[in-house]
Amino acid sequence: MKLAVIGVGLIGGSFALALKKAKAVSHVVGVGRGAANLKLAQERGIIDSIAKDPGDADVVLVAAPVGQYPAIFKSLQGSKAIITDAGSTKRDVVALGRDLPRFVPGHPIAGAEKSGAAAASADLFRDRRVVLTPLKESEDVAKVRKLWEACGARVSSMTAEEHDEVLAAVSHLPHLLAFGLVHDIAKRKNSEQLFSFAAGGFRDFTRIASSHPEMWRDICVANKDLLLSELAKFSGKMEELRKLLEHGDGPGLEKLFAEARHARDQWLKSSS
Amino acid sequence: MKLAVIGVGLIGGSFALALKKAKAVSHVVGVGRGAANLKLAQERGIIDSIAKDPGDADVVLVAAPVGQYPAIFKSLQGSKAIITDAGSTKRDVVALGRDLPRFVPGHPIAGAEKSGAAAASADLFRDRRVVLTPLKESEDVAKVRKLWEACGARVSSMTAEEHDEVLAAVSHLPHLLAFGLVHDIAKRKNSEQLFSFAAGGFRDFTRIASSHPEMWRDICVANKDLLLSELAKFSGKMEELRKLLEHGDGPGLEKLFAEARHARDQWLKSSS
Repeated sequence: MKLAVIGVGLIGGSFALALKKAKAVSHVVGVGRGAANLKLAQERGIIDSIAKDPGDADVVLVAAPVGQYPAIFKSLQGSKAIITDAGSTKRDVVALGRDLPRFVPGHPIAGAEKSGAAAASADLFRDRRVVLTPLKESEDVAKVRKLWEACGARVSSMTAEEHDEVLAAVSHLPHLLAFGLVHDIAKRKNSEQLFSFAAGGFRDFTRIASSHPEMWRDICVANKDLLLSELAKFSGKMEELRKLLEHGDGPGLEKLFAEARHARDQWLKSSS
Repeated sequence: MKLAVIGVGLIGGSFALALKKAKAVSHVVGVGRGAANLKLAQERGIIDSIAKDPGDADVVLVAAPVGQYPAIFKSLQGSKAIITDAGSTKRDVVALGRDLPRFVPGHPIAGAEKSGAAAASADLFRDRRVVLTPLKESEDVAKVRKLWEACGARVSSMTAEEHDEVLAAVSHLPHLLAFGLVHDIAKRKNSEQLFSFAAGGFRDFTRIASSHPEMWRDICVANKDLLLSELAKFSGKMEELRKLLEHGDGPGLEKLFAEARHARDQWLKSSS
Protein backbone atom coordinates (compact mmCIF):
# COMPACT_ATOMS: atom_id res chain seq x y z
CA MET A 1 0.00 0.00 0.00
CA LYS A 2 1.38 3.35 -1.05
CA LEU A 3 0.36 6.38 1.02
CA ALA A 4 0.66 10.04 0.12
CA VAL A 5 0.47 12.66 2.88
CA ILE A 6 -0.28 16.22 1.87
CA GLY A 7 0.91 18.32 4.79
CA VAL A 8 3.47 16.32 6.78
CA GLY A 9 2.91 18.05 10.13
CA LEU A 10 2.02 16.67 13.54
CA ILE A 11 -1.10 14.86 12.28
CA GLY A 12 0.05 13.78 8.82
CA GLY A 13 3.47 12.76 10.08
CA SER A 14 2.07 10.79 12.99
CA PHE A 15 -0.37 8.97 10.67
CA ALA A 16 2.56 7.91 8.46
CA LEU A 17 4.71 6.83 11.43
CA ALA A 18 1.88 4.85 13.01
CA LEU A 19 1.06 3.02 9.76
CA LYS A 20 4.74 2.23 9.22
CA LYS A 21 5.00 0.88 12.74
CA ALA A 22 1.89 -1.27 12.10
CA LYS A 23 3.40 -2.41 8.78
CA ALA A 24 0.22 -1.25 7.07
CA VAL A 25 2.04 0.78 4.44
CA SER A 26 5.00 0.05 2.15
CA HIS A 27 5.88 3.53 0.92
CA VAL A 28 4.99 7.05 2.04
CA VAL A 29 5.35 10.05 -0.23
CA GLY A 30 5.31 13.51 1.32
CA VAL A 31 3.71 16.48 -0.43
CA GLY A 32 3.69 20.00 0.90
CA ARG A 33 4.75 23.62 0.77
CA GLY A 34 7.51 23.56 3.40
CA ALA A 35 10.71 22.19 1.87
CA ALA A 36 12.61 22.23 5.19
CA ASN A 37 9.80 20.42 6.97
CA LEU A 38 9.61 17.74 4.24
CA LYS A 39 13.38 17.26 4.41
CA LEU A 40 13.16 16.80 8.17
CA ALA A 41 10.28 14.34 7.70
CA GLN A 42 12.45 12.30 5.32
CA GLU A 43 15.41 12.38 7.71
CA ARG A 44 13.14 11.19 10.53
CA GLY A 45 11.91 8.28 8.35
CA ILE A 46 8.35 9.63 8.35
CA ILE A 47 8.26 9.75 4.54
CA ASP A 48 10.28 7.78 1.98
CA SER A 49 10.13 10.30 -0.84
CA ILE A 50 9.13 13.87 -1.62
CA ALA A 51 6.95 14.74 -4.60
CA LYS A 52 4.86 17.56 -6.03
CA ASP A 53 1.74 15.40 -6.16
CA PRO A 54 0.52 12.03 -4.80
CA GLY A 55 1.32 10.22 -8.09
CA ASP A 56 0.13 6.61 -8.01
CA ALA A 57 -0.59 6.48 -4.25
CA ASP A 58 -3.43 4.17 -3.18
CA VAL A 59 -4.49 6.43 -0.31
CA VAL A 60 -4.03 10.18 0.12
CA LEU A 61 -4.30 11.88 3.52
CA VAL A 62 -4.91 15.62 3.30
CA ALA A 63 -3.55 17.02 6.57
CA ALA A 64 -3.02 20.63 5.55
CA PRO A 65 -4.87 23.68 6.97
CA VAL A 66 -8.47 23.69 5.68
CA GLY A 67 -7.78 27.05 4.03
CA GLN A 68 -5.58 25.19 1.53
CA TYR A 69 -8.22 22.55 0.68
CA PRO A 70 -9.75 24.26 -2.38
CA ALA A 71 -6.41 24.26 -4.22
CA ILE A 72 -5.47 20.78 -2.99
CA PHE A 73 -8.84 19.23 -3.90
CA LYS A 74 -8.66 20.86 -7.35
CA SER A 75 -5.27 19.21 -7.90
CA LEU A 76 -6.78 15.86 -6.86
CA GLN A 77 -9.61 15.96 -9.45
CA GLY A 78 -9.34 12.76 -11.49
CA SER A 79 -7.27 10.96 -8.85
CA LYS A 80 -8.04 7.25 -8.55
CA ALA A 81 -6.84 7.08 -4.93
CA ILE A 82 -8.94 6.92 -1.79
CA ILE A 83 -8.75 10.44 -0.39
CA THR A 84 -9.25 11.15 3.28
CA ASP A 85 -8.48 14.16 5.44
CA ALA A 86 -7.86 15.33 8.99
CA GLY A 87 -9.67 18.68 9.04
CA SER A 88 -11.19 19.84 12.35
CA THR A 89 -14.50 20.95 10.80
CA LYS A 90 -16.46 18.70 8.49
CA ARG A 91 -19.48 20.42 6.92
CA ASP A 92 -17.23 22.78 4.96
CA VAL A 93 -14.83 19.99 4.02
CA VAL A 94 -17.65 17.73 2.82
CA ALA A 95 -18.94 20.58 0.66
CA LEU A 96 -15.47 21.24 -0.78
CA GLY A 97 -14.78 17.56 -1.52
CA ARG A 98 -18.13 16.39 -2.86
CA ASP A 99 -16.78 16.07 -6.43
CA LEU A 100 -14.03 13.65 -5.40
CA PRO A 101 -15.53 10.19 -6.05
CA ARG A 102 -13.57 8.30 -3.38
CA PHE A 103 -13.48 10.93 -0.64
CA VAL A 104 -13.84 9.78 3.01
CA PRO A 105 -13.78 12.86 5.30
CA GLY A 106 -12.26 12.32 8.73
CA HIS A 107 -11.12 14.06 11.90
CA PRO A 108 -8.62 12.59 14.34
CA ILE A 109 -9.37 14.25 17.70
CA ALA A 110 -5.78 14.46 18.79
CA GLY A 111 -4.29 17.87 18.49
CA ALA A 112 -1.60 19.52 20.48
CA GLU A 113 0.02 22.91 20.63
CA LYS A 114 3.06 21.38 18.97
CA SER A 115 3.21 21.29 15.19
CA GLY A 116 5.37 20.19 12.29
CA ALA A 117 7.09 16.92 11.36
CA ALA A 118 9.42 17.39 14.33
CA ALA A 119 6.50 16.73 16.70
CA ALA A 120 5.11 13.67 14.88
CA SER A 121 4.87 10.44 16.85
CA ALA A 122 3.76 6.88 16.01
CA ASP A 123 1.66 6.83 19.20
CA LEU A 124 -0.22 10.11 18.83
CA PHE A 125 -3.51 8.39 17.92
CA ARG A 126 -3.34 5.50 20.38
CA ASP A 127 -6.73 5.30 22.16
CA ARG A 128 -7.77 8.60 20.62
CA ARG A 129 -11.04 9.19 18.83
CA VAL A 130 -11.22 9.49 15.07
CA VAL A 131 -14.52 10.57 13.54
CA LEU A 132 -15.34 9.72 9.92
CA THR A 133 -18.17 11.62 8.24
CA PRO A 134 -18.65 9.61 5.05
CA LEU A 135 -21.10 10.79 2.39
CA LYS A 136 -22.17 7.16 1.99
CA GLU A 137 -20.97 3.79 3.26
CA SER A 138 -18.48 2.05 0.95
CA GLU A 139 -15.46 -0.22 0.89
CA ASP A 140 -13.34 2.92 0.89
CA VAL A 141 -14.82 3.94 4.24
CA ALA A 142 -14.02 0.49 5.65
CA LYS A 143 -10.47 0.82 4.35
CA VAL A 144 -9.92 4.23 5.94
CA ARG A 145 -11.42 2.97 9.20
CA LYS A 146 -8.93 0.08 9.21
CA LEU A 147 -6.01 2.41 8.65
CA TRP A 148 -6.96 4.56 11.65
CA GLU A 149 -7.54 1.43 13.72
CA ALA A 150 -4.04 0.29 12.76
CA CYS A 151 -2.86 3.58 14.33
CA GLY A 152 -4.53 2.50 17.58
CA ALA A 153 -7.47 4.90 17.27
CA ARG A 154 -11.13 4.35 18.17
CA VAL A 155 -13.12 5.16 15.04
CA SER A 156 -16.71 6.46 14.96
CA SER A 157 -18.96 7.49 12.08
CA MET A 158 -21.49 10.32 12.15
CA THR A 159 -22.82 13.00 9.85
CA ALA A 160 -20.75 16.12 9.26
CA GLU A 161 -23.50 18.15 10.96
CA GLU A 162 -23.39 15.99 14.08
CA HIS A 163 -19.60 16.15 14.16
CA ASP A 164 -19.57 19.93 13.93
CA GLU A 165 -22.21 20.23 16.66
CA VAL A 166 -20.34 17.97 19.08
CA LEU A 167 -16.99 19.62 18.46
CA ALA A 168 -18.46 23.12 18.79
CA ALA A 169 -19.46 22.21 22.37
CA VAL A 170 -16.45 20.31 23.66
CA SER A 171 -13.62 21.81 21.63
CA HIS A 172 -14.37 25.03 19.74
CA LEU A 173 -16.15 26.85 22.57
CA PRO A 174 -13.48 26.00 25.19
CA HIS A 175 -10.81 27.31 22.82
CA LEU A 176 -12.76 30.55 22.35
CA LEU A 177 -13.14 30.96 26.13
CA ALA A 178 -9.45 30.31 26.78
CA PHE A 179 -8.30 32.71 24.05
CA GLY A 180 -10.80 35.28 25.36
CA LEU A 181 -9.73 35.04 29.00
CA VAL A 182 -6.02 35.37 28.23
CA HIS A 183 -6.70 38.27 25.86
CA ASP A 184 -8.84 39.99 28.48
CA ILE A 185 -6.07 39.78 31.06
CA ALA A 186 -3.27 40.61 28.62
CA LYS A 187 -4.96 43.90 27.71
CA ARG A 188 -5.23 45.16 31.31
CA LYS A 189 -2.92 47.84 32.66
CA ASN A 190 -1.84 45.50 35.47
CA SER A 191 -1.53 42.42 33.25
CA GLU A 192 2.04 41.76 34.40
CA GLN A 193 0.94 41.63 38.03
CA LEU A 194 -2.08 39.47 37.18
CA PHE A 195 -0.02 36.92 35.24
CA SER A 196 2.61 36.84 37.97
CA PHE A 197 0.05 35.52 40.48
CA ALA A 198 -1.53 33.03 38.09
CA ALA A 199 -0.86 29.43 39.12
CA GLY A 200 -1.26 25.90 37.86
CA GLY A 201 -5.04 26.10 37.53
CA PHE A 202 -4.73 29.08 35.21
CA ARG A 203 -1.95 27.41 33.23
CA ASP A 204 -4.05 24.33 32.51
CA PHE A 205 -7.24 26.30 31.91
CA THR A 206 -5.47 28.38 29.26
CA ARG A 207 -3.28 25.70 27.70
CA ILE A 208 -5.47 25.65 24.59
CA ALA A 209 -4.95 29.43 24.21
CA SER A 210 -1.46 28.49 22.98
CA SER A 211 -3.06 26.77 19.97
CA HIS A 212 -2.39 27.84 16.41
CA PRO A 213 -4.20 31.15 15.64
CA GLU A 214 -4.56 30.54 11.89
CA MET A 215 -5.99 27.06 12.36
CA TRP A 216 -8.45 28.29 14.99
CA ARG A 217 -9.48 31.23 12.83
CA ASP A 218 -10.42 28.74 10.09
CA ILE A 219 -12.28 26.46 12.51
CA CYS A 220 -14.25 29.37 14.00
CA VAL A 221 -15.19 30.81 10.63
CA ALA A 222 -16.15 27.40 9.19
CA ASN A 223 -18.28 26.47 12.21
CA LYS A 224 -19.50 29.94 13.14
CA ASP A 225 -23.25 29.23 13.26
CA LEU A 226 -22.90 26.28 15.65
CA LEU A 227 -20.21 28.07 17.66
CA LEU A 228 -22.45 31.13 18.04
CA SER A 229 -25.18 28.83 19.28
CA GLU A 230 -22.79 27.28 21.84
CA LEU A 231 -21.67 30.73 22.92
CA ALA A 232 -25.30 31.72 23.51
CA LYS A 233 -25.91 28.60 25.62
CA PHE A 234 -22.78 29.30 27.64
CA SER A 235 -23.82 32.93 28.16
CA GLY A 236 -27.07 31.60 29.59
CA LYS A 237 -25.11 29.48 32.06
CA MET A 238 -22.96 32.48 32.98
CA GLU A 239 -26.13 34.49 33.61
CA GLU A 240 -27.35 31.69 35.91
CA LEU A 241 -24.04 31.87 37.80
CA ARG A 242 -24.16 35.66 37.89
CA LYS A 243 -27.57 35.58 39.57
CA LEU A 244 -26.43 33.02 42.14
CA LEU A 245 -23.44 35.24 42.92
CA GLU A 246 -25.47 38.43 43.07
CA HIS A 247 -27.87 36.86 45.56
CA GLY A 248 -24.96 35.41 47.54
CA ASP A 249 -26.70 32.04 47.10
CA GLY A 250 -24.13 29.75 48.70
CA PRO A 251 -26.21 26.54 48.54
CA GLY A 252 -27.09 27.19 44.88
CA LEU A 253 -23.44 27.76 43.96
CA GLU A 254 -22.31 24.69 45.89
CA LYS A 255 -24.97 22.53 44.19
CA LEU A 256 -23.91 23.65 40.72
CA PHE A 257 -20.21 23.18 41.52
CA ALA A 258 -20.84 19.72 43.00
CA GLU A 259 -22.89 18.64 39.96
CA ALA A 260 -20.13 19.83 37.64
CA ARG A 261 -17.42 18.08 39.64
CA HIS A 262 -19.42 14.88 39.75
CA ALA A 263 -20.05 14.95 35.99
CA ARG A 264 -16.37 15.57 35.27
CA ASP A 265 -15.21 12.85 37.64
CA GLN A 266 -17.64 10.37 36.05
CA TRP A 267 -16.35 11.32 32.62
CA LEU A 268 -12.72 10.80 33.69
CA LYS A 269 -13.61 7.40 35.14
CA SER A 270 -15.46 6.25 32.04
CA SER A 271 -12.77 7.51 29.67
CA SER A 272 -9.79 6.03 31.48
CA MET B 1 9.74 26.51 67.62
CA LYS B 2 6.43 24.85 68.28
CA LEU B 3 3.84 24.96 65.49
CA ALA B 4 0.11 24.26 65.71
CA VAL B 5 -1.80 23.51 62.54
CA ILE B 6 -5.59 23.87 62.67
CA GLY B 7 -6.83 21.81 59.72
CA VAL B 8 -4.16 19.29 58.75
CA GLY B 9 -5.15 18.93 55.10
CA LEU B 10 -3.18 19.38 51.90
CA ILE B 11 -2.08 22.93 52.79
CA GLY B 12 -1.65 22.62 56.55
CA GLY B 13 0.02 19.23 56.28
CA SER B 14 2.39 20.38 53.55
CA PHE B 15 3.36 23.46 55.61
CA ALA B 16 4.25 21.20 58.55
CA LEU B 17 6.19 18.75 56.38
CA ALA B 18 8.14 21.52 54.62
CA LEU B 19 9.09 23.21 57.91
CA LYS B 20 10.17 19.87 59.37
CA LYS B 21 12.28 19.18 56.30
CA ALA B 22 13.85 22.66 56.68
CA LYS B 23 14.40 21.98 60.39
CA ALA B 24 12.53 25.20 61.14
CA VAL B 25 10.20 23.58 63.64
CA SER B 26 10.75 21.26 66.61
CA HIS B 27 7.21 20.08 67.33
CA VAL B 28 3.95 20.17 65.39
CA VAL B 29 0.60 19.77 67.06
CA GLY B 30 -2.40 18.97 64.92
CA VAL B 31 -5.86 20.37 65.67
CA GLY B 32 -8.99 19.58 63.73
CA ARG B 33 -12.40 18.00 63.39
CA GLY B 34 -11.43 14.85 61.48
CA ALA B 35 -10.06 12.24 63.89
CA ALA B 36 -9.17 9.78 61.13
CA ASN B 37 -7.33 12.46 59.16
CA LEU B 38 -5.37 13.57 62.25
CA LYS B 39 -4.43 9.96 62.98
CA LEU B 40 -3.18 9.55 59.41
CA ALA B 41 -1.23 12.83 59.74
CA GLN B 42 0.46 11.50 62.86
CA GLU B 43 1.26 8.17 61.18
CA ARG B 44 2.78 10.02 58.24
CA GLY B 45 4.96 12.09 60.60
CA ILE B 46 3.24 15.34 59.59
CA ILE B 47 2.28 16.11 63.19
CA ASP B 48 3.84 14.94 66.44
CA SER B 49 0.77 15.20 68.63
CA ILE B 50 -2.97 15.76 68.47
CA ALA B 51 -4.71 18.30 70.70
CA LYS B 52 -8.01 20.12 71.09
CA ASP B 53 -6.32 23.51 70.94
CA PRO B 54 -2.89 24.97 70.03
CA GLY B 55 -1.79 25.12 73.70
CA ASP B 56 1.60 26.83 74.04
CA ALA B 57 2.45 26.85 70.32
CA ASP B 58 4.61 29.78 69.11
CA VAL B 59 2.92 29.89 65.71
CA VAL B 60 -0.57 28.78 64.69
CA LEU B 61 -1.48 28.13 61.06
CA VAL B 62 -5.23 28.17 60.41
CA ALA B 63 -5.69 26.02 57.31
CA ALA B 64 -9.37 25.12 57.71
CA PRO B 65 -12.22 26.15 55.38
CA VAL B 66 -12.93 29.88 55.82
CA GLY B 67 -16.47 28.98 56.90
CA GLN B 68 -14.96 27.62 60.13
CA TYR B 69 -12.91 30.76 60.88
CA PRO B 70 -15.42 32.54 63.17
CA ALA B 71 -15.42 29.64 65.64
CA ILE B 72 -11.67 29.07 65.33
CA PHE B 73 -10.78 32.74 65.77
CA LYS B 74 -13.09 32.95 68.80
CA SER B 75 -11.22 30.03 70.38
CA LEU B 76 -7.92 31.85 69.69
CA GLN B 77 -8.91 35.05 71.55
CA GLY B 78 -6.24 35.68 74.17
CA SER B 79 -3.66 33.47 72.43
CA LYS B 80 -0.12 34.76 72.66
CA ALA B 81 0.99 32.95 69.50
CA ILE B 82 1.59 34.44 66.07
CA ILE B 83 -1.48 33.42 64.11
CA THR B 84 -1.41 33.10 60.35
CA ASP B 85 -3.75 31.48 57.87
CA ALA B 86 -4.05 30.03 54.39
CA GLY B 87 -7.48 31.22 53.29
CA SER B 88 -8.06 31.88 49.58
CA THR B 89 -9.86 35.20 50.14
CA LYS B 90 -8.42 37.89 52.35
CA ARG B 91 -10.80 40.84 52.88
CA ASP B 92 -13.24 38.66 54.79
CA VAL B 93 -10.47 36.95 56.75
CA VAL B 94 -8.88 40.27 57.72
CA ALA B 95 -12.26 41.47 58.96
CA LEU B 96 -12.81 38.28 60.95
CA GLY B 97 -9.34 38.34 62.52
CA ARG B 98 -8.91 42.02 63.32
CA ASP B 99 -9.21 41.43 67.08
CA LEU B 100 -6.32 38.96 67.15
CA PRO B 101 -3.28 41.09 68.11
CA ARG B 102 -0.64 38.99 66.34
CA PHE B 103 -2.57 37.96 63.22
CA VAL B 104 -0.71 37.81 59.87
CA PRO B 105 -3.17 36.85 57.10
CA GLY B 106 -1.70 34.82 54.24
CA HIS B 107 -2.55 32.85 51.13
CA PRO B 108 -0.29 30.21 49.61
CA ILE B 109 -1.25 30.03 45.92
CA ALA B 110 -0.80 26.31 45.61
CA GLY B 111 -3.99 24.37 45.55
CA ALA B 112 -4.83 21.12 43.93
CA GLU B 113 -7.90 18.97 43.48
CA LYS B 114 -6.43 16.57 46.04
CA SER B 115 -7.14 17.17 49.70
CA GLY B 116 -6.46 15.80 53.16
CA ALA B 117 -3.30 14.83 55.03
CA ALA B 118 -2.83 11.94 52.61
CA ALA B 119 -2.03 14.43 49.83
CA ALA B 120 0.38 16.61 51.85
CA SER B 121 3.92 17.00 50.55
CA ALA B 122 7.04 18.80 51.78
CA ASP B 123 7.55 20.25 48.29
CA LEU B 124 4.07 21.63 47.61
CA PHE B 125 5.15 25.25 48.09
CA ARG B 126 8.49 25.08 46.32
CA ASP B 127 8.70 28.06 43.93
CA ARG B 128 5.02 28.83 44.56
CA ARG B 129 3.70 32.25 45.43
CA VAL B 130 2.55 33.08 48.94
CA VAL B 131 0.78 36.40 49.49
CA LEU B 132 0.71 37.99 52.93
CA THR B 133 -1.82 40.75 53.56
CA PRO B 134 -0.66 42.15 56.92
CA LEU B 135 -2.68 44.82 58.70
CA LYS B 136 0.62 46.52 59.55
CA GLU B 137 4.31 45.66 59.23
CA SER B 138 5.78 43.95 62.32
CA GLU B 139 8.31 41.39 63.47
CA ASP B 140 5.53 38.82 63.32
CA VAL B 141 5.10 39.48 59.59
CA ALA B 142 8.84 38.99 59.08
CA LYS B 143 8.68 35.74 61.01
CA VAL B 144 5.77 34.36 58.96
CA ARG B 145 7.54 35.43 55.77
CA LYS B 146 10.64 33.48 56.83
CA LEU B 147 8.58 30.37 57.56
CA TRP B 148 7.07 30.39 54.08
CA GLU B 149 10.48 31.06 52.57
CA ALA B 150 11.78 28.04 54.46
CA CYS B 151 9.09 26.07 52.59
CA GLY B 152 10.66 27.25 49.31
CA ALA B 153 7.92 29.77 48.51
CA ARG B 154 8.23 33.24 46.96
CA VAL B 155 6.51 35.61 49.37
CA SER B 156 4.81 38.91 48.44
CA SER B 157 2.92 41.46 50.50
CA MET B 158 -0.10 43.43 49.35
CA THR B 159 -3.37 44.72 50.75
CA ALA B 160 -6.27 42.33 51.18
CA GLU B 161 -8.19 44.35 48.56
CA GLU B 162 -5.40 44.00 46.01
CA HIS B 163 -5.09 40.28 46.73
CA ASP B 164 -8.81 39.69 46.22
CA GLU B 165 -8.81 41.70 42.98
CA VAL B 166 -5.86 39.80 41.51
CA LEU B 167 -7.19 36.40 42.50
CA ALA B 168 -10.68 37.19 41.20
CA ALA B 169 -9.14 37.63 37.74
CA VAL B 170 -6.64 34.77 37.52
CA SER B 171 -8.22 32.18 39.80
CA HIS B 172 -11.84 32.74 40.84
CA LEU B 173 -13.19 33.63 37.39
CA PRO B 174 -11.47 30.69 35.63
CA HIS B 175 -12.95 28.34 38.23
CA LEU B 176 -16.41 29.79 37.64
CA LEU B 177 -16.02 29.37 33.85
CA ALA B 178 -14.81 25.79 34.17
CA PHE B 179 -17.60 24.79 36.58
CA GLY B 180 -20.10 26.54 34.29
CA LEU B 181 -18.94 24.86 31.09
CA VAL B 182 -18.97 21.37 32.58
CA HIS B 183 -22.38 22.00 34.15
CA ASP B 184 -23.74 23.30 30.85
CA ILE B 185 -22.63 20.16 29.02
CA ALA B 186 -23.64 17.77 31.82
CA LYS B 187 -27.23 19.06 31.69
CA ARG B 188 -27.69 18.42 27.95
CA LYS B 189 -29.72 15.50 26.67
CA ASN B 190 -26.72 14.30 24.66
CA SER B 191 -24.18 14.92 27.43
CA GLU B 192 -22.86 11.37 27.23
CA GLN B 193 -22.07 11.74 23.54
CA LEU B 194 -20.53 15.18 24.10
CA PHE B 195 -18.24 13.99 26.90
CA SER B 196 -17.25 10.93 24.87
CA PHE B 197 -15.73 13.13 22.15
CA ALA B 198 -14.03 15.53 24.56
CA ALA B 199 -10.25 15.27 24.41
CA GLY B 200 -7.14 16.45 26.20
CA GLY B 201 -7.85 20.14 25.62
CA PHE B 202 -11.21 19.81 27.36
CA ARG B 203 -9.70 17.75 30.18
CA ASP B 204 -7.11 20.43 31.00
CA PHE B 205 -9.53 23.31 30.50
CA THR B 206 -11.92 21.77 33.02
CA ARG B 207 -9.40 20.37 35.50
CA ILE B 208 -10.30 23.09 38.02
CA ALA B 209 -13.98 22.04 37.78
CA SER B 210 -12.94 19.06 39.90
CA SER B 211 -12.11 21.45 42.76
CA HIS B 212 -13.87 21.31 46.11
CA PRO B 213 -17.46 22.65 45.82
CA GLU B 214 -17.73 23.82 49.45
CA MET B 215 -14.42 25.69 49.34
CA TRP B 216 -15.32 27.36 46.06
CA ARG B 217 -18.77 28.29 47.34
CA ASP B 218 -17.08 30.13 50.23
CA ILE B 219 -14.57 31.84 47.93
CA CYS B 220 -17.29 33.00 45.53
CA VAL B 221 -19.53 34.32 48.28
CA ALA B 222 -16.66 36.07 50.08
CA ASN B 223 -15.36 37.71 46.91
CA LYS B 224 -18.65 38.16 45.08
CA ASP B 225 -18.38 41.89 44.29
CA LEU B 226 -14.96 41.57 42.65
CA LEU B 227 -15.94 38.30 40.97
CA LEU B 228 -19.09 39.90 39.53
CA SER B 229 -16.90 42.68 38.19
CA GLU B 230 -14.57 40.13 36.55
CA LEU B 231 -17.54 38.28 35.11
CA ALA B 232 -18.80 41.52 33.56
CA LYS B 233 -15.39 42.22 32.00
CA PHE B 234 -15.24 38.70 30.62
CA SER B 235 -18.77 39.01 29.21
CA GLY B 236 -17.55 42.11 27.37
CA LYS B 237 -14.72 40.08 25.85
CA MET B 238 -17.17 37.34 24.87
CA GLU B 239 -19.37 39.97 23.19
CA GLU B 240 -16.29 41.16 21.26
CA LEU B 241 -15.66 37.57 20.12
CA ARG B 242 -19.33 37.06 19.28
CA LYS B 243 -19.29 40.04 16.96
CA LEU B 244 -16.10 38.87 15.24
CA LEU B 245 -17.72 35.46 14.72
CA GLU B 246 -21.03 36.87 13.52
CA HIS B 247 -19.25 38.99 10.92
CA GLY B 248 -17.05 36.03 9.95
CA ASP B 249 -14.11 38.34 10.61
CA GLY B 250 -11.22 35.92 10.08
CA PRO B 251 -8.40 38.49 10.38
CA GLY B 252 -9.94 39.93 13.55
CA LEU B 253 -10.24 36.48 15.14
CA GLU B 254 -6.72 35.51 14.12
CA LYS B 255 -5.33 38.76 15.57
CA LEU B 256 -7.05 38.21 18.92
CA PHE B 257 -5.97 34.55 19.05
CA ALA B 258 -2.37 35.45 18.15
CA GLU B 259 -2.24 38.17 20.81
CA ALA B 260 -3.57 35.76 23.42
CA ARG B 261 -1.12 33.03 22.44
CA HIS B 262 1.77 35.48 22.50
CA ALA B 263 0.80 36.78 25.95
CA ARG B 264 0.49 33.27 27.32
CA ASP B 265 3.78 32.14 25.83
CA GLN B 266 5.55 35.19 27.28
CA TRP B 267 4.02 34.43 30.67
CA LEU B 268 5.19 30.81 30.55
CA LYS B 269 8.71 31.95 29.60
CA SER B 270 8.91 34.50 32.39
CA SER B 271 7.49 32.13 35.01
CA SER B 272 9.69 29.15 34.22
